[in-house]
Order: sequence, then C-alpha cells, then structure tokens
Amino acid sequence: QMPRGNLETIHPRALVLSAVRKYLDSLEFGQAFVCMRKHRLNLNLIYDHCPQSFLDNVQKFVQQVKLVDYINLFLTDLREEDCTVTMYTAAYNRSAPVVDEGTNRPSKVDKVCEVVRQALVSEDEKKYLLSILTSYVRKSTPELEAALLMVKTLRAMPSDQQTMSAEEVLKYLVFLVDVNEMFDVALGTYDFDLVLMVAEKSQKDPKEYIPFLNKLRKLEGHFQLYTIDEHLKRYSNALGHISKCGPEHFETCKTLIQKHKLYTEALQLFPVSSEEYKSIAKLYGDYLSDKRRHLEAGIIYLNAEEWERALQDFQVCLQWRQVFCMTARLKYSCDTEADIARKLAEQMKMKKQYLDAAHVLEQYAKDTEEAIVCLIDGCLWEEALRMMYKYGRTDFIETHLMEALTENYNQQMETLENCKSEFDKYKKRLAVVREEKEKARLEFLESGGAGNFADADLFSDTSSATGESIQSSRYSSESARSGRSSLYSKSSGSSVKNRRKAEHKRWKLKEGSQFEDFALIAALAKLIKMVDDMRDEMNALLRVLLQFHQYKQAADIQRAYDRLLTQMDRGIPEIWQDSEEGKESQPMLGPMTTANSIAQAVQRGQSLEHSQEKLDPVIRIPPTLRKEVSWKLHVLDSGSSKT
Amino acid sequence: QMPRGNLETIHPRALVLSAVRKYLDSLEFGQAFVCMRKHRLNLNLIYDHCPQSFLDNVQKFVQQVKLVDYINLFLTDLREEDCTVTMYTAAYNRSAPVVDEGTNRPSKVDKVCEVVRQALVSEDEKKYLLSILTSYVRKSTPELEAALLMVKTLRAMPSDQQTMSAEEVLKYLVFLVDVNEMFDVALGTYDFDLVLMVAEKSQKDPKEYIPFLNKLRKLEGHFQLYTIDEHLKRYSNALGHISKCGPEHFETCKTLIQKHKLYTEALQLFPVSSEEYKSIAKLYGDYLSDKRRHLEAGIIYLNAEEWERALQDFQVCLQWRQVFCMTARLKYSCDTEADIARKLAEQMKMKKQYLDAAHVLEQYAKDTEEAIVCLIDGCLWEEALRMMYKYGRTDFIETHLMEALTENYNQQMETLENCKSEFDKYKKRLAVVREEKEKARLEFLESGGAGNFADADLFSDTSSATGESIQSSRYSSESARSGRSSLYSKSSGSSVKNRRKAEHKRWKLKEGSQFEDFALIAALAKLIKMVDDMRDEMNALLRVLLQFHQYKQAADIQRAYDRLLTQMDRGIPEIWQDSEEGKESQPMLGPMTTANSIAQAVQRGQSLEHSQEKLDPVIRIPPTLRKEVSWKLHVLDSGSSKT
Repeated sequence: QMPRGNLETIHPRALVLSAVRKYLDSLEFGQAFVCMRKHRLNLNLIYDHCPQSFLDNVQKFVQQVKLVDYINLFLTDLREEDCTVTMYTAAYNRSAPVVDEGTNRPSKVDKVCEVVRQALVSEDEKKYLLSILTSYVRKSTPELEAALLMVKTLRAMPSDQQTMSAEEVLKYLVFLVDVNEMFDVALGTYDFDLVLMVAEKSQKDPKEYIPFLNKLRKLEGHFQLYTIDEHLKRYSNALGHISKCGPEHFETCKTLIQKHKLYTEALQLFPVSSEEYKSIAKLYGDYLSDKRRHLEAGIIYLNAEEWERALQDFQVCLQWRQVFCMTARLKYSCDTEADIARKLAEQMKMKKQYLDAAHVLEQYAKDTEEAIVCLIDGCLWEEALRMMYKYGRTDFIETHLMEALTENYNQQMETLENCKSEFDKYKKRLAVVREEKEKARLEFLESGGAGNFADADLFSDTSSATGESIQSSRYSSESARSGRSSLYSKSSGSSVKNRRKAEHKRWKLKEGSQFEDFALIAALAKLIKMVDDMRDEMNALLRVLLQFHQYKQAADIQRAYDRLLTQMDRGIPEIWQDSEEGKESQPMLGPMTTANSIAQAVQRGQSLEHSQEKLDPVIRIPPTLRKEVSWKLHVLDSGSSKT
Repeated sequence: QMPRGNLETIHPRALVLSAVRKYLDSLEFGQAFVCMRKHRLNLNLIYDHCPQSFLDNVQKFVQQVKLVDYINLFLTDLREEDCTVTMYTAAYNRSAPVVDEGTNRPSKVDKVCEVVRQALVSEDEKKYLLSILTSYVRKSTPELEAALLMVKTLRAMPSDQQTMSAEEVLKYLVFLVDVNEMFDVALGTYDFDLVLMVAEKSQKDPKEYIPFLNKLRKLEGHFQLYTIDEHLKRYSNALGHISKCGPEHFETCKTLIQKHKLYTEALQLFPVSSEEYKSIAKLYGDYLSDKRRHLEAGIIYLNAEEWERALQDFQVCLQWRQVFCMTARLKYSCDTEADIARKLAEQMKMKKQYLDAAHVLEQYAKDTEEAIVCLIDGCLWEEALRMMYKYGRTDFIETHLMEALTENYNQQMETLENCKSEFDKYKKRLAVVREEKEKARLEFLESGGAGNFADADLFSDTSSATGESIQSSRYSSESARSGRSSLYSKSSGSSVKNRRKAEHKRWKLKEGSQFEDFALIAALAKLIKMVDDMRDEMNALLRVLLQFHQYKQAADIQRAYDRLLTQMDRGIPEIWQDSEEGKESQPMLGPMTTANSIAQAVQRGQSLEHSQEKLDPVIRIPPTLRKEVSWKLHVLDSGSSKT
C-alpha cells in the first residue's frame, strides 16, 4: 500500500464503527473485515453484532473473507466475552445478559469454531487446512487429537496431492499449542511416527524420549496401550487396556484399580462371577469396609462371593436379614448361628430395634424367653402376647408384662405431663419475647422514622442462624426409649450425624438471648413433633390396658393425650403466626390513617417478608399434626363422657 | 306508711340512683335496699354496683336488710345480666365485658345465692329458713333436693323447736317451684312420707299416685331404689342399685344396660372376671361388633373371655397377632389354624400388608413357598431372601425373584418418569394460571380503584373450598401397589373414610375452572409427597439390584430418582410462594411511588393475608422433603460421576 497524507488517516472510531455495523447489517463481511482490521477493531464484533445473522450466513463470511490468514486471525481473536457489552457499549447500549452460574451454557468460541469449520470444510478442505486446524485448537478444550489426526492423514497422502507438507502443518500447530502438550496428545494416538514428528519439533532431548519410545515399542498390544495411557494419566482408558491383557497382568490391573479407585468401572469390564470380577469386588469391599461404609461393603462382598466378610460387615450395620442369609450360605452350625444371633440382638436392642431383635432371638438363637422379654422391653405388647401363646408361655403375663405395662403407663403419663408444662412454659415465654421485640421495634420506628431501611433490619427478626446448640431436650431420649423399631431400619450412621449437625446450628433458649424467640419456636416444634409421633404407641398402650381390664388408666391417659394434642393443635396458629402484625395492620387504610402510618405499615410488611425468606423452615413452616393417624379407642371416650 | 303530699313523691331516677350508689359505697345496704324498693330500682344493682364489695360484706348485707321477705325479694329478683350495663348505663358508663362463648364462667346468680345462704346460715338458720330455701331454688339448676331435705329435717324436729311447720315451708316451696317437678325430686330422696306431703300439695289425683307409691313400697331394698331411679330416668343411679340386687335381677340389669348403653359404667360395677362382668362385656362386644367397631369389639370380647367371638372380630380387622393368640387359647388344631391363616393372609395381601401376611403364612399356615412368594410380591427383597435361605429354597431366586425385580425396576422407572412429566406439566400450568389471575386482578384494581374492599375478595384467592372431587390420581394406587405394609397396620375403617371425605372437598383441575390454581398446588403437593415417600422402597430396590450385579439399572434409577427429588426440592419455593406479590412489592416506597400505588400495595398485602387465613393447609404450607431419610448408595454415585 502507498503512503498517504496525514489528513486521510483521521478516522474517528465512532464513524468507523458505524460503517462496520452497516457492512455487517448488509452481510458484507469482507468489507467489514478489511475495515476492522485496518482500524484494529475487535474482530469478535463480527459475531457479537448479531450472532444469529452470523451463524446463518457463515458460508458467506468464509467466501468473502476468503484468505486463510484472515480466517485464522478471526479465529484466534475469538473471546468468550460479548464485545458489544464490554468494549463497544456506547454504540450498542446493550445490557449484559443475566448469567446463571449453575447452568453450562455452550461456549460462544466453541460454537463459532464449529460453524466456521463446517463452512471451511464444505468450501475447500485442502485450502483451508490451517484454518481448520486453528478451529480445532481454539476450542475451549482444544481438540488436539483431531488436529493431529489431520496431520497424520496428510502425511499418509501421496505428496503430489498435498498442498502443504505434514511438516509445515505440524510447525504451525506447534506455534499455536505448547509442544509438550502436543507430545502427550500424539502419544495418546498410539502412533509412534506421529510422536516422533512432534518430538522433533520440540525442545525435548532426543536422549530422553527416544529410549522411552523404544521401550514402549517393545511392549505388546494392549499392554503397550495401557502403559501409554497410564503414563498420560488416562486411567480409565488404561484400565480398559490392562483388563484385556489376561491373567498374567491382573496384578497390575488390581494395583491400578486400587490406586485410582476405579472399582465400579472395573467391575463392568469383567464378566460377572469371573475370578477377576470377584477379586475386584473383594478389593472394593475391603475399601468400603475401611471407609466404614459397611452396608455397601457387605453388598459388594456378596458380589465377590466373600460370604464371611459380607457377614462381618452386615453384622456391624445390623442387617440381620442379610446376616442370616450368610450363615445359611456358610452352613454354620446351629450353635454358631445362635451365638451370632445373641450378639446381634443385643446390639439391636440398644438401637431400639426390639421387634427385629425378638425375631432374631426367636428364630436363630431359639431363645423364646429372651425374645418375649425383648418384646415386652420394647412395649410391643401384642407381639409379646402372640409369642407367649405360640410357645405356651403365658406365665410371662404375670411375671413380666403386667409390671412393664404399669411402668410404661406411668412413664407415658409423666411424659405427657412434662410435655404439657414445657409447652405452656415456652408458649407463654414466646408471647412475652414477641411483645418485647415489638415494643422495641415500635420505639425504634418512632425515634428513627420510616427512612432508614438498613437499620430496621436489626429488629426485623432477620439474620441467619448463629449461636451454639440448643439444650438437648431430655424428652427426645425418652420418646426413643419407648419407641419401636422401624421395619427396615436404616443403619447408615451418616444420617444420624447430619441430624446432630443440624441441631448444632440452632439458637439459644437462654432468657434474653438474641434469638430466643426462634429457639422457643424450634423447641415448641420439637415438642409438638414428639407428642404427635406418640400416636401409634399410645394406641397400642390403650389397647393392651383395655384388654387387661384397666379401664380407668386407659381412659385417663387417653384423655390426657387427647387434651395435649388439642392444645397443641390450637396453639399452632398462635406460635406460627402468618405475619405477626396481622391483626394490627387491618385498619391500615381508612379515615384514621395518615401517610406516615401507611408507610410504616408497608415497611413492616416488607421487612417481615425479607426475613421470612431467609428463615429456617422450622420457624417459617408450622408443623402439621398427623390427624389421619387414628389412635383413640371410642370405647373409652363414651365411657368418660358419661361418668 | 302514711300517705304523703304530691310534692314529696317527685324523685328523679338519676338522683335516687345517685343516693343509692352512695349508700352502697358506704356499705349501708339497709338504706339502699329500702330506697331501691320504694323507687322500684332493680335490686340486682346491690350486687352489680360493686360485686367484690358485696361478696366481701354479704354478712353486713344480711344483718342490715334483716327481714326474711326482703331477702327473699332480693334473691328472687336476681338475674344473670349486669344491670349496670343493661339498665343503668347512663349512670355507670361501663362497657359489657367480652364473653367467651366457649368457657363456662360461673353464674352470677349461683354465686350470690351461695354467699347469701352462707351468711344466712351463720346468722340464724331457723329464722331465715325460707330465705335459705329460696337461695336453693333460685340457683340456675335449682337444688330442690337440698330444699326438700330441709323440709324433711324440719318435720323430724319436735314441734316446739319449729319456728314454722314443715307444711308451711312446703307450701312456700310449691309456690316457687312446679309441684310435679317437686314430686319427682321427693321421690328421688326415696322418702315416701315426703313424697306424700308434696303430693298432697299438688293437683295430682290421689287415685293415681297412691297405688304407684304403694307398689313401690312393696319392693325391697335396692330394687325399690332401682325402680324409683328408673322411673325418674336416672339410669346411672338405677344401674348402681340394680347391680346390687343379686343374680335374680341380673336380667333386668342387662336390659337396662343395653337400653341405655351403660356398658362401660356397668363393667366398673362388677368385679373383673365375675360372671356378671363377663356377661356385660359380651353384651358390649355384641353391640360394638354390630356397630362394625371390630377392633374394640374384639378387645371387649377378651374381657368377656368370649374367645371365639373375639377371634371373629379380630379376623375382620386383620389383627393377626390377636387372632393367633385366640387360636392358641382355643386349642385349635393345626389344620384349623392353617385354614384361618391362609384366609387371613389373603386379606392382608389385598391390604398390602405383605410382611405380616408372609409371617402368618410361614408360622401358622406352615406354607413356606407361599410366604416367599408373598414377600416377593410385596417387593420385600431381603426378607424374601432370608426366608429362602432359612428353608433352603434359594431356587426361588431364579424362578421368581429375578423376574419380579426386573418388573419392579421397570415399573418404578415408569412411575418416576410419569411423576416428572406430571410435575413439569402442573408447575408450568400453575405459572400460567397465576399470571392470568394477576393480570385480571390488576385490571380490576385499575378500573375499580382501591376503595371497595368487599369486591376485591373476588380476586383475592379467598373462599373456602367448593367444587367436586379432584380426579383421583392414578399414581396413588400405583404407589400403594408397590408399597409395603406398616408394622402395626391400622385397620379402623373410619380413618380411611375420613381421608376420602377430605379429598372430596378439593378443587377441580379442569383448565379454566375457578380454583384451578389451588387444584394444581394440591396435585403438586400430592405428587411431591408420593415421590418423597418412595425413599425406603427405592433404597431397598437399589440394594437388591446391586446385590444381583445390576449396576447399570441401579445407577440409572438412582440418578432418575435423585434428579426428581432435587427438581421437586427446587420447585417448592416457586410453587408455595410466601406471598405471590413478594417481588413486585419491593419498590413500594421511594421517589417513584404515589399515595395511590402505596394504597394499592397495602391493599394487596392485606387481602392476601385474609385469604391465607382461610386457606387449606395444603395450599398454605409447603411440603417438606424427608431429607433425613438417606436412601442413596454412594457406591453407585461415584460410579456414575466417572463414566
């Protein structure tokens, strides 16, 4: 180009931009490109100006821009950011789109590379070879292997069909990408010639890589591939190869699996019940057992047909059904089985799984007496009676059941009384605390006015949970003691741990503490849940009391429980007020209100809304009583209404 | 009193009242009474003026008023109403106290009668005899018996100690109270002389009551008392008397019990296990059984030691434990027991109580094969395996279990897919319906303005539930099919009925129906509950899939379930918005707002509050996922993240 006069060089950016936009609008990509290049505009604009138009007309873009170098320039200049938002804001006045951090939206660069490559291939694959390579390399995760395979294809062609030599192309590639990375990718194609070609372009010392490559060359088939993948840290692939290397390499395979925890993948590579499969399952079982994931360890040991080890793990997590599947499989003697049963039952009793423990004692320890005692301990009255009748041991009714029944009755009565007094106490205190808070808030509003929203938060019951653990209620343990075991009892310790953790983040019940109201609500929720959960055991107790002629006790405890439930049901709307100011805000509009009172009311409503969003569900959501679980005996009801 | 001049008779009520008040304030009850009587003021004022002062100085009142007639006048004039509120409002300007309709506050008349009587008794019991009687009769439930007993005491006294004859007193009583009522009360004292005295005062025909009384006189002891009480419809008392009449009258006793349903009371009158006790319990059992309250009937039959009838009722309500207590007690043969077991298990299977049904089949029908099949049908995989091993029937794994497992897997997968699509569909539709409602409401507000609150309710999502039943979701039955039985399964049909009734009051899902949004929320809540409830069965399925090497299926279904749970968890805050207008109302205050916009915002918040109070809890309270129930197998989790 010829040198030009000074005047000609004045090109205000805004005018240039305007011209470029016109070119782009009329799909004159060539003109636009030349102009942008001359005035060093960001080439991303070609796409960002109107992404859909570019995508629709990418073929035209390639045809107009034409030159390989230009297209390479465009591709290498691509950035994820939208330059109409970041750089040319004045011209576009577009606002940045709302980006969800969570969702993986497709990369702009990847999208453009992909469509440009397709256009190039359909235009002239040979001519645009370098551009095509660039489009591979520029992707957010560069497709180096695809690029290298192109080099390989090129090398395989007769030289008269080549527009460029493989050497040249490789040189260009190495210019774009770190050569060491390229070396690994080449190695990953398992093509030693390609590796050598790349290696020659690198700064690597041939004394290093030649022996390495020679060593690899000497290895055979799958083991060679395994070694390469292992070297490249592609462990999944390595596992695939080594698994095909036969029994002589199985030890290596096992080491690989253990080192990189590829157990589940490995199990899918060998036929079920093959020696290898079992061996891997055993390793996996060992691993899980070590990690104290006993239930899963047990199941995996089953896959390994390692019955004894499975037995041990199932024993630890009290999976009694599985335990006795194992003892049967292992053909243990009755005595051994009985020993295991007795130990297991002891542990199950400690976990309150009385029903299952009793079955274990009955069926495997063959100890009817212990089984009956266990059922009575668990307050499983009807099952206890059934077993007594089954084995003709109704003498236990007098010797054990009646006493336990009285004790359970007394204990439940006491629990109900304690719950009632606790409930009353917390509820009263909550009303006091709320009143105090409301007073403080109103005082603050009066003094500070309705203006300063930020400070108002101080009084708006907001703030996430802080403080130490709530005092652990003594009732939780009491209710558990008299509770019965669930059918399939979960024994994964993790859930217990989580629950405990959750309890730690609660607030303090101490009088006057900052979030005392929350602590009170949480404590009330716990009480309500606990009492509501007693429905089934209460029903069982009532039935057996009635069966043994104890009308009075049955009627008394039914009345006490019924009253407590009713009291709690009535208390719930009071404790979980939909909005604390509900009643006050009713005369918010009307002849008596002023602009100020309306504003205050509005602000009140608003701060409440904010805080509720952040609140723990315990505070926000009132518990629901399981009214659908019927527990009452109507026999007792009608009796009490008549006396 | 001497006639007085005209001028003297002018006594403006206000001045009189003022004088009376002064008298009362200075506790000059005598003066006050005379003045009030002369000017016909309401005598209630003596108490109402200052109740506490009257109660504290009632002795003084009696001493000052003195005359029997005056005190009688005061007592008969007593009314429940507070005359300072109803009659002499101007002088007192007191507002009516807030009365809780529910609570039984003690009657004012009763209170005054009580304290005045005490004062009279301590003053001079004989002199004030008639006043004391009046105080009994004037009580809200007249204590006629006490009054009559006074007459009786009087009659028993030597005549020289009497200030009045019993005759006279009775005459006074009959003047106050209906004589027929008096007759019954006299009869209730079991004192025939007294009855005769009263009868003579009445208009009754002696030809009627004399033979009746003579007939009664001839009866003996408790039976006489029973007949009287039965005649007076005092059935509880009658029962007490007849129960003491010995075996020859026991039939009458039973008739009484049955006629007036006095079962529970009657049971407490006879020693446990006496023939009478058992006989009554049997009657009660028959009654309950007739009323289809089989569980309670069964228990009561136990009290009656009617084992066979108990057995029948327990069978009907599937109380299998009790059933086999009965068969043992009745010493049924093994064959009979097996027959019962088989029938029972069939019914239990229909109610999805597979675990218990299997135990019945195993232990009482001694049919291991059926038991195993039953467990497999109930998807109780581990228990099925245990039983197979216990009886050496692992052949069932191939013949039954594997097929059922595949079927269950497919079915659960389908359920998850259906739930997911249903969830998406309802959620989308809910957003549309809400938008439409919001638009309609805003249009309404714009046209109608913020004034007319009443009409605004039309759009405020208020109104109690109307419309017909929601379409019964097909999933509810599906989930039940694959569900497992609960440990102690309730079989009281009433709770099922209640639940069904509750479902009938729901809203219509039909597009465009008035409460479509509520119907959608209810349907979504049901879906979420159903999916959340699958945790345990999903865990069991995953375990057994893994045990039988079906990694892929296990991982697939774990992923599908996990995704659905996550999706629902995220959807909950969207569906149960704390307040629909939450986001909009944020810029309610600030430079851009007008008085009108604030008023609208306030009104919006208010109508919402109103409606929420009336709403069904399903709409108001978001469901909570039972995140504490762990169901995942981590083994499968890590596998899926690596492939």
